[in-house]
Amino acid sequence: QTIRIASQLAEKGKGERASKLFEHAVSLDSHQPEVLNEYGVFLERNKNDIIRAEHMYCKALQYNSSHEAAIANRRRASPIVAKLDKAMFQRIKRKKEVLLKALNKKDNIVVLQKAHHELFLQHIHHTAALEGNTFSIDQARVLMETGRAIGGKSVAEHNELLGLAEALLYINSTLLKKIGNFNVQDLLDLHQHIMGHVDPRTAGQIRNKQVFVSKHIPPKTKLVPALLEDLVQWINNNLRSGMPDIKLSALIHYKLVYIHPFLDGNGRTARLLMNSILLGSGYPIVNIGLNDKHEYYTLLQAANDGDARPFIRFIGRCTERTLNDLLWLI
Amino acid sequence: QTIRIASQLAEKGKGERASKLFEHAVSLDSHQPEVLNEYGVFLERNKNDIIRAEHMYCKALQYNSSHEAAIANRRRASPIVAKLDKAMFQRIKRKKEVLLKALNKKDNIVVLQKAHHELFLQHIHHTAALEGNTFSIDQARVLMETGRAIGGKSVAEHNELLGLAEALLYINSTLLKKIGNFNVQDLLDLHQHIMGHVDPRTAGQIRNKQVFVSKHIPPKTKLVPALLEDLVQWINNNLRSGMPDIKLSALIHYKLVYIHPFLDGNGRTARLLMNSILLGSGYPIVNIGLNDKHEYYTLLQAANDGDARPFIRFIGRCTERTLNDLLWLI
Ligand SMILES: Nc1ncnc2c1ncn2[C@@H]1O[C@H](COP(=O)(O)OP(=O)(O)OP(=O)(O)O)[C@@H](O)[C@H]1O
Ligand SMILES: Nc1ncnc2c1ncn2[C@@H]1O[C@H](COP(=O)(O)OP(=O)(O)OP(=O)(O)O)[C@@H](O)[C@H]1O
Ligand SMILES: [Mg+2]
Ligand SMILES: [Mg+2]
Repeated sequence: QTIRIASQLAEKGKGERASKLFEHAVSLDSHQPEVLNEYGVFLERNKNDIIRAEHMYCKALQYNSSHEAAIANRRRASPIVAKLDKAMFQRIKRKKEVLLKALNKKDNIVVLQKAHHELFLQHIHHTAALEGNTFSIDQARVLMETGRAIGGKSVAEHNELLGLAEALLYINSTLLKKIGNFNVQDLLDLHQHIMGHVDPRTAGQIRNKQVFVSKHIPPKTKLVPALLEDLVQWINNNLRSGMPDIKLSALIHYKLVYIHPFLDGNGRTARLLMNSILLGSGYPIVNIGLNDKHEYYTLLQAANDGDARPFIRFIGRCTERTLNDLLWLI
Repeated sequence: QTIRIASQLAEKGKGERASKLFEHAVSLDSHQPEVLNEYGVFLERNKNDIIRAEHMYCKALQYNSSHEAAIANRRRASPIVAKLDKAMFQRIKRKKEVLLKALNKKDNIVVLQKAHHELFLQHIHHTAALEGNTFSIDQARVLMETGRAIGGKSVAEHNELLGLAEALLYINSTLLKKIGNFNVQDLLDLHQHIMGHVDPRTAGQIRNKQVFVSKHIPPKTKLVPALLEDLVQWINNNLRSGMPDIKLSALIHYKLVYIHPFLDGNGRTARLLMNSILLGSGYPIVNIGLNDKHEYYTLLQAANDGDARPFIRFIGRCTERTLNDLLWLI
């Protein structure tokens, strides 16, 4: 019913009101293939957003895999979307290469190295902020550069930042050399560095209890060790396999938080593992900020529901944002 | 030569000058049985200090076990000293019992519990200060009671105090119940709590390298696990064996720092292990302060040189000091 009205509004050119109505309908009952398919059509026609449209067709087919209209729509849209994704991956890769070349010129080296240092500091700040840490970037800077405490902040918050800084050192000194040859212990060591000061008793330890995160119920505790083995195998096999770096690193991130191998610190570990892969391929470090949090969580859930591409694109946007900032400097 | 002069001065009643001269001679050449023996005689006659005198005779005999005068002197002094030590152990035990009884009276309970809480805080402060921590007791109090950082202090110093507080919780909740039934893992867990936040990678781990402490060269690395096994065995066997509590706990402290099983934190662990034994026998927690540091180190070295009794007496004095403070409250 709502859908018919929305479609009519759309035809009459009342795009904004139609959009609101659609989003309302989807949020009320996001399991309705009919609603999802119509929303897709609307997104394509009125919003010119074939990527989100195709995601809606896919979603519709998750609930009814023989929905005729959705099948036809997806068949038509998917190759176009795949091309758009490919173009995005290539554009990002090109920007990275321009940046790498620029690093070879004497003039740029100091500026860009300083910028990379700032990005590291920002990563520590943002990744901790996502988890609830209240340090401003300037307070984090004081802590990192002097090792002195900020009066009034909890000691635990200091230790969160300290752990992230140590983890970045560990990545630079050790983990990057092991890319392509990862093992499970490397993952546990990464977690140990991140969480060691905060929670020395559980840092570097696979969880011994079931955990929950938003709507996601991670795999049973006893399966975790084997799943981690599979994950590092998958990473090693897919590195330099031709899969775009953005896709590979986003999927590694997703797969790790899907397994959720630790009692706490899964997100921070996943973001640093993803960044290790990116750094290893010459990308700058990628930051997911507090402003991205809602989207970040929603797209991880979309991946759980069967479509990881929106999350991959999100990581692409985050990467491109950083690349643009750096390219602006040269 | 110096000795003869010193002895003559002593005979002429010039005790102070003689004392200075003796101490000078002993510090110049503390391996001379003759000097040590004469100094002992002087201490007995002019200083009325038979305990230190007997320690000098013992020391003389460490260097020449057939020194006639020293043998005779020790034979005479030793039984008297043993009686004095026994009297000290009994006096301390009696004071503890008076205190335990006082705890049963309603009027005292609040006051004494508050005092015990203060002693815990003091322990954290003092034991960290010995190791170089610069927090004042009031800064430590703010940290303990609010969990908030003190601006400008290093994060590491915060973590030292945090670890000690966690270790005290662990002792109260877990370790005290295992007295008489200790195992090596309990010791490692104690160390893990103390050092976890400061140094998550080595906390709870037996050292993998040779270490040195002052003049003491602890046993070879590969012997440490077996020596720790022996130590916990020795503790379990000697608890409630009739050995005075002070002697037992001081020896446990000494034996642990002798083995020096950890890369760092041996002193803090030893002081807390000693206190666990004391707490388990109804004593208040015992603090070795920064003012005691020189004596503390010297007497541990004296134990290495063959006579642990001065260190045991030192722990007795520290315990009695605390007991006196508490008895004064009731
Ligand atoms: N629906 C979801 N499915 C899978 N993973 C999710 C989902 N929602 C959130 N996550 C991931 O779980 C992380 C939170 O898990 P956890 O608390 O263990 O990590 P953290 O590092 O302590 O916290 P944070 O990631 O918020 O800093 C999020 O950061 C995100 O990466
Ligand atoms: N000559 C000695 N023989 C044996 N043990 C000693 C000697 N001198 C000092 N010690 C012990 O060694 C400890 C120092 O070792 P370590 O640095 O591992 O401990 P810590 O806890 O880090 O430091 P601290 O004990 O100063 O707080 C001293 O506290 C003391 O207990
Ligand atoms: Mg968390
Ligand atoms: Mg030390």
